[in-house]
Amino acid sequence: MFFEGSEKKAEIILSEQHTSLLSQYSDDFWAEMVRHCNAQILSSTRNSSVTAYLLSESSLFVWKDRILILTCGDTRLVDAVIYFLEQIDNALVEQIIYQRKNEYCSHLQASHVLDDTKKLADFSPGKLLRFGELDAHHSYFYHMENNFQGDPEDRTYEVLIYNIDETISERLTNQKQSNQDFRQLLKLDQIIPGFQIDDFVFEPFGYSLNAISGSDYLTIHLTPQQHNSYVSFESNLDLTQHLGLLLDIFAPSSLDIISYNEPSFADKIKANMPENYNLKELAQDNLSCGYLVNYATYFKQQSQLNKPTTINLRGEYHAF
Amino acid sequence: MFFEGSEKKAEIILSEQHTSLLSQYSDDFWAEMVRHCNAQILSSTRNSSVTAYLLSESSLFVWKDRILILTCGDTRLVDAVIYFLEQIDNALVEQIIYQRKNEYCSHLQASHVLDDTKKLADFSPGKLLRFGELDAHHSYFYHMENNFQGDPEDRTYEVLIYNIDETISERLTNQKQSNQDFRQLLKLDQIIPGFQIDDFVFEPFGYSLNAISGSDYLTIHLTPQQHNSYVSFESNLDLTQHLGLLLDIFAPSSLDIISYNEPSFADKIKANMPENYNLKELAQDNLSCGYLVNYATYFKQQSQLNKPTTINLRGEYHAF
Repeated sequence: MFFEGSEKKAEIILSEQHTSLLSQYSDDFWAEMVRHCNAQILSSTRNSSVTAYLLSESSLFVWKDRILILTCGDTRLVDAVIYFLEQIDNALVEQIIYQRKNEYCSHLQASHVLDDTKKLADFSPGKLLRFGELDAHHSYFYHMENNFQGDPEDRTYEVLIYNIDETISERLTNQKQSNQDFRQLLKLDQIIPGFQIDDFVFEPFGYSLNAISGSDYLTIHLTPQQHNSYVSFESNLDLTQHLGLLLDIFAPSSLDIISYNEPSFADKIKANMPENYNLKELAQDNLSCGYLVNYATYFKQQSQLNKPTTINLRGEYHAF
Repeated sequence: MFFEGSEKKAEIILSEQHTSLLSQYSDDFWAEMVRHCNAQILSSTRNSSVTAYLLSESSLFVWKDRILILTCGDTRLVDAVIYFLEQIDNALVEQIIYQRKNEYCSHLQASHVLDDTKKLADFSPGKLLRFGELDAHHSYFYHMENNFQGDPEDRTYEVLIYNIDETISERLTNQKQSNQDFRQLLKLDQIIPGFQIDDFVFEPFGYSLNAISGSDYLTIHLTPQQHNSYVSFESNLDLTQHLGLLLDIFAPSSLDIISYNEPSFADKIKANMPENYNLKELAQDNLSCGYLVNYATYFKQQSQLNKPTTINLRGEYHAF
C-alpha cells in the first residue's frame, strides 16, 4: 500500500497581546481544528510551555503565542489552518508560514500547493517560494508579507530522509515493533535525553513521536515501507549535530535538510555529513519576514549496480 | 506556461512475415493513428528504409518491420498504440515496448503509467519495471512477455537533459531562433554529418528534429522554458560519445542516459562524463525479451549557493 509520508506544515504566530493559546482553547477545540484536515488526535503530552498532540497524520504543537502543525498522507492541512484563522481575532495574527514538500506521488494529492497558498493569500497577501529544482527534491514556502520581523534566535531544523536502507525497511515492516524498539532504533537517549515522550506505533506500519522539554520540541514521523520510505525530524534543537547518527541508522538514498535562522548552516552540515553523500542542492534566502531559510538536498553515492523494481500490474493502483 | 517535455515512448516490432509497414500504410493511416493521442503530423522525411514523421508532440518513425513513436505534453500515447494494434493482424506482433519517464508535473497528466500498461497488458501479458527511485528521476519500462528474443545488435541510446543553463534558456525563449540557429547550437554537423534533416521551430518556444540516413535515425526535442527545460535525444547512433559535447552546450543540472544492448554502458558514460557531474543512479537489467537495458542519472555538482524561485500566485496554475 502506498502512503505519502511527506508532510505539509504550517506555523501561525500570534502577537503577545492575546490571551495564551494554551489557556484559551481546550483539547476539544484542537480536535475540531484537526478534524478539518481529516486528522484525529491520538494522544497528548504537555508542560507549562507547550502542549504536543500526536495526530493520526503527524503532529500539532501549541505554545502560548504560536501553533505548529504537520500533516502527511493526503490531508488538506490548509483547511485546518483556514478553520483556525476563522476562530481567532485576525488582528492578532502576525505571521503564517506554510510549507509543502514535493510528494512521491503528487498525482494522488487532493490539492496542489498553488491551490493551498491561494486560499492563504485570500486571508492575507503573501509570497510563495520554491527551494530546490522542479525535477528533484524541492520544498515550497509561503509566508505573509507584512511588517512582521521574526526573532533571529527562533531556530528550527528539519531532516527529511528518503529511501531508508532495505534491511531496516524490512525489519520495520516484517517484524512487530514496540515503542521501545523504535526509541532504541532512533537512539533517543542521545538526541533528547530527559524529554517527555509521547509516541505511537501504527498498524500495519509506521511510527510517530512527539517529545518536549520546556519550550523545546522534537517530532519524528516514520513511514518504513520499501520504495517509498520516509522519516522526518523537526525540532528547535540543532539536528545538524546528529546527521552522522541518523544517516548511520537509516543509510537513506537521499535527504533534505531545512533550517530557519541557522547562520552556519552550510558549514555545519558539511562538517557533519558522511563523505558518501553528494550535495545536490544548496539554497538560501532571507525572507522578507525576517527569517533566514536554508535548504539542502544530498544524495548517497551509488556504490553498486542497481536492479529495476518490478511493479505488480494487478497490485495497488496507488503504489507507483 | 508549463509544458511537459518528458516523453512517453512505444516501439512495436512485427514479424518479418508481414508486408512492409512502409508500403502497406499511407501517410493518412499514420495521421489517423497519431490523432488518437491528440497529435498531428507536421512534416515527414523518408528514404527506402524509414519514414520519419515530425509530430506536433514529438516523432513517429516507421521502418519495414517496426514503429517507434514518442509523444510529450499530456498526450495519451497508449491510445495511439492500441489503435495501431486494432488495425493490424495481431499474430504479427512480436514485441511491444512502452516507456514512460517520470514527469515534472505528474499531477497534470491525463493518465498514470499503471493505467497505460494495464491497457497494453489486456492486449498481451507483460512486465512493468521501474529504473530509478521514486523520489528521484525514474523511468518505467513495459514489455510483452513471450518467446521474442530481440537482436542484441539492435542498440539504441537516449540522453535526457533537465534544466539547461539559464543563459541558453533565456536566449532560446527571448530571441527568435531559426532552424539554422538550432542546428548550429546542437552542432549537428559533428553528430550527424550527411543525414537528411527535418526540423521545426515551435511558437512561442521549442524545437523538434528528425534525422535519418539509411536505417539510422536521430530525434531531438527541446523545451527551453526556464525551470522546466528539457532536451531529449534518441538514436541508434552511440550518443555516449557525444556526452561531453551535449553537456558543454546545455550545462544542465541533471541528465538521464538510457541504452538498449550497449554492453559497455557504464564504462562508456564514465569515460565521457565531465567531472562535475555526480552519478545518482546506475541500474541494469536483462529483460526477459532479450534486451539488455541500462539506465543512469547524473546530477551536476553544486558550485554556488542558489536562491529559491519566486512563484507568481496569480500566474498559470500549470506552472508549478
